[in-house]
Amino acid sequence: MLVAGATGFAGALAAHLLWRHPGFELVGVTGRSETGRQLQDLYPRYRVPLTIAELDLEALPDVQAAVVAYPHAAAAPTVAALLERGVRVVDLSADFRLASQATYEQWYGPHPRPDLLEGAVYGLTELHRERIASARIVANPGCYPTASLLALAPLSRAGLIADVVIDAKQGISGAGRAFDEQTHLSMAGENILPYKVAAHRHTPEIEEQLHALDPSRPDLRVQFQASLVPLDQGEMASCYVTPTRPVPAAELQDLYEQAYAQEPFVEVASVPPGTRETLATNFCRLFAAADGHTGKVLVFSSIDNLWKGTSSQALQNLNVMFGQPEERGIA
Amino acid sequence: MLVAGATGFAGALAAHLLWRHPGFELVGVTGRSETGRQLQDLYPRYRVPLTIAELDLEALPDVQAAVVAYPHAAAAPTVAALLERGVRVVDLSADFRLASQATYEQWYGPHPRPDLLEGAVYGLTELHRERIASARIVANPGCYPTASLLALAPLSRAGLIADVVIDAKQGISGAGRAFDEQTHLSMAGENILPYKVAAHRHTPEIEEQLHALDPSRPDLRVQFQASLVPLDQGEMASCYVTPTRPVPAAELQDLYEQAYAQEPFVEVASVPPGTRETLATNFCRLFAAADGHTGKVLVFSSIDNLWKGTSSQALQNLNVMFGQPEERGIA
Amino acid sequence: MLVAGATGFAGALAAHLLWRHPGFELVGVTGRSETGRQLQDLYPRYRVPLTIAELDLEALPDVQAAVVAYPHAAAAPTVAALLERGVRVVDLSADFRLASQATYEQWYGPHPRPDLLEGAVYGLTELHRERIASARIVANPGCYPTASLLALAPLSRAGLIADVVIDAKQGISGAGRAFDEQTHLSMAGENILPYKVAAHRHTPEIEEQLHALDPSRPDLRVQFQASLVPLDQGEMASCYVTPTRPVPAAELQDLYEQAYAQEPFVEVASVPPGTRETLATNFCRLFAAADGHTGKVLVFSSIDNLWKGTSSQALQNLNVMFGQPEERGIA
Amino acid sequence: MLVAGATGFAGALAAHLLWRHPGFELVGVTGRSETGRQLQDLYPRYRVPLTIAELDLEALPDVQAAVVAYPHAAAAPTVAALLERGVRVVDLSADFRLASQATYEQWYGPHPRPDLLEGAVYGLTELHRERIASARIVANPGCYPTASLLALAPLSRAGLIADVVIDAKQGISGAGRAFDEQTHLSMAGENILPYKVAAHRHTPEIEEQLHALDPSRPDLRVQFQASLVPLDQGEMASCYVTPTRPVPAAELQDLYEQAYAQEPFVEVASVPPGTRETLATNFCRLFAAADGHTGKVLVFSSIDNLWKGTSSQALQNLNVMFGQPEERGIA
Repeated sequence: MLVAGATGFAGALAAHLLWRHPGFELVGVTGRSETGRQLQDLYPRYRVPLTIAELDLEALPDVQAAVVAYPHAAAAPTVAALLERGVRVVDLSADFRLASQATYEQWYGPHPRPDLLEGAVYGLTELHRERIASARIVANPGCYPTASLLALAPLSRAGLIADVVIDAKQGISGAGRAFDEQTHLSMAGENILPYKVAAHRHTPEIEEQLHALDPSRPDLRVQFQASLVPLDQGEMASCYVTPTRPVPAAELQDLYEQAYAQEPFVEVASVPPGTRETLATNFCRLFAAADGHTGKVLVFSSIDNLWKGTSSQALQNLNVMFGQPEERGIA
Repeated sequence: MLVAGATGFAGALAAHLLWRHPGFELVGVTGRSETGRQLQDLYPRYRVPLTIAELDLEALPDVQAAVVAYPHAAAAPTVAALLERGVRVVDLSADFRLASQATYEQWYGPHPRPDLLEGAVYGLTELHRERIASARIVANPGCYPTASLLALAPLSRAGLIADVVIDAKQGISGAGRAFDEQTHLSMAGENILPYKVAAHRHTPEIEEQLHALDPSRPDLRVQFQASLVPLDQGEMASCYVTPTRPVPAAELQDLYEQAYAQEPFVEVASVPPGTRETLATNFCRLFAAADGHTGKVLVFSSIDNLWKGTSSQALQNLNVMFGQPEERGIA
Repeated sequence: MLVAGATGFAGALAAHLLWRHPGFELVGVTGRSETGRQLQDLYPRYRVPLTIAELDLEALPDVQAAVVAYPHAAAAPTVAALLERGVRVVDLSADFRLASQATYEQWYGPHPRPDLLEGAVYGLTELHRERIASARIVANPGCYPTASLLALAPLSRAGLIADVVIDAKQGISGAGRAFDEQTHLSMAGENILPYKVAAHRHTPEIEEQLHALDPSRPDLRVQFQASLVPLDQGEMASCYVTPTRPVPAAELQDLYEQAYAQEPFVEVASVPPGTRETLATNFCRLFAAADGHTGKVLVFSSIDNLWKGTSSQALQNLNVMFGQPEERGIA
Repeated sequence: MLVAGATGFAGALAAHLLWRHPGFELVGVTGRSETGRQLQDLYPRYRVPLTIAELDLEALPDVQAAVVAYPHAAAAPTVAALLERGVRVVDLSADFRLASQATYEQWYGPHPRPDLLEGAVYGLTELHRERIASARIVANPGCYPTASLLALAPLSRAGLIADVVIDAKQGISGAGRAFDEQTHLSMAGENILPYKVAAHRHTPEIEEQLHALDPSRPDLRVQFQASLVPLDQGEMASCYVTPTRPVPAAELQDLYEQAYAQEPFVEVASVPPGTRETLATNFCRLFAAADGHTGKVLVFSSIDNLWKGTSSQALQNLNVMFGQPEERGIA
């Protein structure tokens, strides 16, 4: 195994999880900065004693798969090069998350390698497990779509979503290893900050998946909004659904319990989950309620944005891709 | 001036603000616990050197007004007794916030003194300034309704709200001086916790005021939901409005700027406000945006839940009630 | 395995670690409150699906060992009763930490079972590994002594400590599941609070161990002081040693590297460690420096107070007691 | 009044306090970056609607005094230029804090304007009030020396300090508007980090003042060590003094009460102060205790590092310099 882009939060955690995984061997970590230092000097807590090197495609170690943690648009060419060398990829960027090239280009600009879109599988394990098993490119979902789609999939499949508002809150690690006003403790602390108002790039990713789950509503537009709150790791997607018909509480409970009864990492709770309950785990914890006053359906979805939202889900996908028990190394 | 119930967060801050107010004299602080201690022993930061005593209605100091910071239902009898002795009251409880006795009893149980409802004025200063000036009972709004109503009033008055979801986030001081799982730093810290799902008591207060602002929609139901986030003081109401007709961005901006041009404590921002921008102030800071993708109107409203949301708004109302400059002692 | 007193922070974490330990089977969790609830309802994050029951000494499950997480003085009788039934104990209280009954009674009051003191072994694994292996009672150290003694042991053994000040800082989890002014986020947050000034009960525990390490200084008095800082888990012991003779930097570095070269859980760092580096791990991370300006020796010792400071060290000791690899289940 | 260097935390807060001060008029704020923006765009919470400009010494507004908030060494030439134009200065840098040029150069490198050292007064108001009143350069103390010296001055004046260890803890605002590993919430949060081990530049400033207070110990070396803890504003200096002779508790209490009885901003508390008690105030709150076990004297000193530690103390000094009541605008 290889982690390309291991100096950011997502890549570093993926390296940590791979390093201690009993079924995989992590042989390399790469980065464009900090080369020559051990990853554990940069992230002492992760205790990965490998030296950060530049990615050299001509002298790749002999690996079966790589986790690529590059920025959007920068990822695609590297993913392509790895594929050509027979390396399967879990890509943490947005480059292969959208099946539609047109939608991608509307939100991100020109796509570097549209020819590879068709072979990529959207890596929300619970929705696409079978195709992930044999995929050469797994496009790991964004953290917000992970929480949102696990919350909405049961309703969407049942054709119950007429309209939806998603208000997501996230800890500061969601901003990554960026050093600026949004991450300085004296500015991010004691603060609640809505950001990217009315234009969040995770919107099309959520919409495309919901359209696939409920083809009867190809024009569903999702109102997605995120806020930063002063914690490190943790994400809550609060979903407010106007249903296509009244949904009794008992039906709602059944719907969720049945949807996730077999899922090792999705828990249906009987009270609203706090994000601490999923901290540093691969779990998603859900709570659904029917509001008798307004007729709306509310679903709260808690994950750790760096774990299930990013890096441990990458491991979950690698487990599926390589026939390991799905929970191995992340439970 | 007198503060009855000064040992909780709201009463203590009201006492602090009154103590340092150049136009009022604070002569007494009462409490049912901690009597005999100075308030500044309980809240050193507030430096109020008055001794906490039990409220003795038979030996009231000679005061013109009192801030009553009692729990719901416990407040009404004391408010009544104070009124009988010629003392005007700013009541921080919910007892006089709802004009409709029926609505009150649906959410809170039997009303102790329904006869006094008619004379009470809802103390959101910006909406009811003139009536507050001469009121004998001012029902100080809840913190969530304060943020929500300042966010929605311009749209409501213009008849533009067809449907609305309010997702509010608040710091832990909103839970008050309660010692439990919700306030322990090792549980509340690094957590995001939705609470009182589908049944928040602030809902009817918001609805009643909106119905008054837009009589054309007497059946508007508000979806209100709150979450606790790990900070001390700060509150953000994120409002997602389905408008009755498309609202262009320019019209929206105009609507808000005109609505609040003369208001000393409401700021219309050009970017989403963080709650730090209103920390320890009486300001409400708003940002409105039209989402071209969904057609919805988004309004973000930031206040300090203990200041504008509670205690400094009580002072703002006292300033209005006693002919003091409205900004005195709180700006 | 059994955890008696699993409803507090320490017992709950011990239960969590035992539940997922591949070499032990956790068969019971007991508590005096919350009986009938699953431990995972109280601590969802720990996911231990056992039901909390009262401890019934007459109907003990068939276990080889128990972790006892009771308050001081309450622990000793239960420890004794378990011993009589052939159950080995790791006791998290102070009851068996001090070899001297007189010292115990000076700081804690009458000892409930002084007859058992002689057979108890102080459970700082790195200092007493061999005796722990065969002990029937292991007295798990306090978190402050754990960090302090690992910091000072190399200097003490070398006879280098003439005087020492220990200034320790700890997160709020150190106050346990107590709901009060010290743990409420609105009071503990944005605060630094020295507590138990000039009278901390961890002092004699540190002194007794240092006297054993350096018998030449039986009268060494340790100045120990703790402060609460606003985080959850994490502890830093900053030790200021006046040495018995000048200690060159190179000698100091050697001393620490040699002392801990074989220790799986003690790291000698080359820069001052932050407590994040040991968060949710059993590691202690140390940094020692000679101050050329004052001649003093400074040692900084970072642990997670709930892990190495308490519950994971209990597991480390259980591993030693039952012939498991020492790092099993906690690395 | 003018604030030169208003874009950093210290300068911005000084501008905020001057802007709302009833006795001073703030006419300009300067900065080397962010010119053309209003200060309130950078610091919305401070609400200072002045435009940031480059400092133009040839076109200075007509001001009597300036607060200079520049980095060390960069400050001195600007201070000199302002003096030449008849502007009195409160300098927040270290450039004029040390009377001894030799000591300055040992810790900071060559002094840009040693000729001005003699005329500068050390701006710890409580120690040098009279000389500050007529000073042309007031060297505002560092935040650590402020807390430490107020803690130690009574003991030092009485000749009671034989040896002293100062362990200071501070919130992240102490690192200023720096965007890096030390200030990112995901790194600084849930962390305790000792820094600048055995080499903190505030040491000579504390020593020089103590030597002046107690000329009998010209060779006293101070062990000073600081740690960052995860809060915004707040600082605690915990001082461990080995006294020259035993100090009874009653004498100690007397010593502190008499030393500060007339001081408007120094409080002698009867229990250890938390830093929240001085948050956003100009107060220093002290607690002294004699440790019967060790014979040492412990003093805990709490301030807000940005207020009394920096900017509000600058205002306190300006009040003294211009004959305003000392508490005006900061109480």
